[in-house]
Amino acid sequence: MTTRPKIYLFGDSITEDSFSVGGWGASLANHFSRTVDVVLRGYSGYNTRWALKVLERVFPVSLGGDGGNETAPVALTVFFGANDACLPDRCSGFQHVPLHEYKENLRSIVSFFKKRWPTTHVLLITPPPIDEEARLRYPYVENPEGLPERTNEAAGEYARACIAVATECQIPFIDLWTKMQQSPDWKQDYLSDGLHLTNEGNQLVYEEVIGKLIDEGLSLESMTVDLPLIADIDPNDPLKAFL
Amino acid sequence: MTTRPKIYLFGDSITEDSFSVGGWGASLANHFSRTVDVVLRGYSGYNTRWALKVLERVFPVSLGGDGGNETAPVALTVFFGANDACLPDRCSGFQHVPLHEYKENLRSIVSFFKKRWPTTHVLLITPPPIDEEARLRYPYVENPEGLPERTNEAAGEYARACIAVATECQIPFIDLWTKMQQSPDWKQDYLSDGLHLTNEGNQLVYEEVIGKLIDEGLSLESMTVDLPLIADIDPNDPLKAFL
Repeated sequence: MTTRPKIYLFGDSITEDSFSVGGWGASLANHFSRTVDVVLRGYSGYNTRWALKVLERVFPVSLGGDGGNETAPVALTVFFGANDACLPDRCSGFQHVPLHEYKENLRSIVSFFKKRWPTTHVLLITPPPIDEEARLRYPYVENPEGLPERTNEAAGEYARACIAVATECQIPFIDLWTKMQQSPDWKQDYLSDGLHLTNEGNQLVYEEVIGKLIDEGLSLESMTVDLPLIADIDPNDPLKAFL
Repeated sequence: MTTRPKIYLFGDSITEDSFSVGGWGASLANHFSRTVDVVLRGYSGYNTRWALKVLERVFPVSLGGDGGNETAPVALTVFFGANDACLPDRCSGFQHVPLHEYKENLRSIVSFFKKRWPTTHVLLITPPPIDEEARLRYPYVENPEGLPERTNEAAGEYARACIAVATECQIPFIDLWTKMQQSPDWKQDYLSDGLHLTNEGNQLVYEEVIGKLIDEGLSLESMTVDLPLIADIDPNDPLKAFL
């Protein structure tokens, strides 16, 4: 008897909020309700610099002393960049991480996981696009200058950097920045405050993650259901299913 | 460094479905997003007889050989009875468990957990009330007799039996059957098909669970946040928070 496989969601507030109503994390957990534990490790406001500082604490080596292999997750999403991409000279500048360091940090995060869990499918997700006007309408902190703390152009640079790291590391990625902007109404449809996701934005992320997991061979059909489904229980002799 | 505490949700389809949009399980996971892992162990169609058969497989002794104590969850919901209460001579009769056996099974389930994890708060939840007319409108299986496979009266008997076991075992319980019927529009407000929960029904379960956890000393405020919150990070020296 083994324990149920896990998928970790590691990221910033877009991950931390992913179990709110209609959230992409909850949808994943619902999709895999009989097969996989979806484990939330979202840290609102965090950038890759801080993520790197806490990596060992978020993913401690298992107490079994086996280097954590016994509890290797089947997959893991890494979804940072929206905070790194804050402009350095604006009101959320303390969250900014320079582009070159962002790439370096992402590489370090990926190699941490690849070293810890060689078989785990690590999936990078780029930051979403930014609706700058909405960012002014929904400020997170005092913003006396009246300039958006994030721009779509900067988010795009970080998205491309994320893709470059994924390509270099030969791991799958979701180009959320491009994907969302393929819809003409992306600002209203996908973003609630110019950065965080609406229900529709959450649905898009959910579907993209499911799609990438299928590409990696992790479809619902490929997963083991650990206990009999009601459809497989014989009404004339139900207990037979539990022998 | 310890791993994050867990709350297990153990039950039938009303638990298995609890991470769907607006579901009570997802709401719990969202509430505890920085403090507790909410782990789904819902098995659609299961009654207490089958639950008892699979208990050791759903909750295997940890590989560490410590009897599982190291991984004791802080709390656990046990939410069975809706299937046990199917009438024996109707179309879902194969799921029926006699009232006396239901009590006996619940006692065994509770004592399994109390023996395994003496410190874990085990919370019993009664089956919800039944809207018999809706059960005829939304059949799960062929129903040539045209009689509801569940009645509200029977669900009430199982609810009272559940409360009796909780009282006897001196553990907390949620009397969902009574609680829901305190609202005059309970059938439409709380039930989607006469048995399963609407968003409002899910919200009620979520609030009741949160309330009981607070009674047991498990409020959000009492939980340890394992890593700095963004509000606790000094914008002038962010890395100080990670030393």
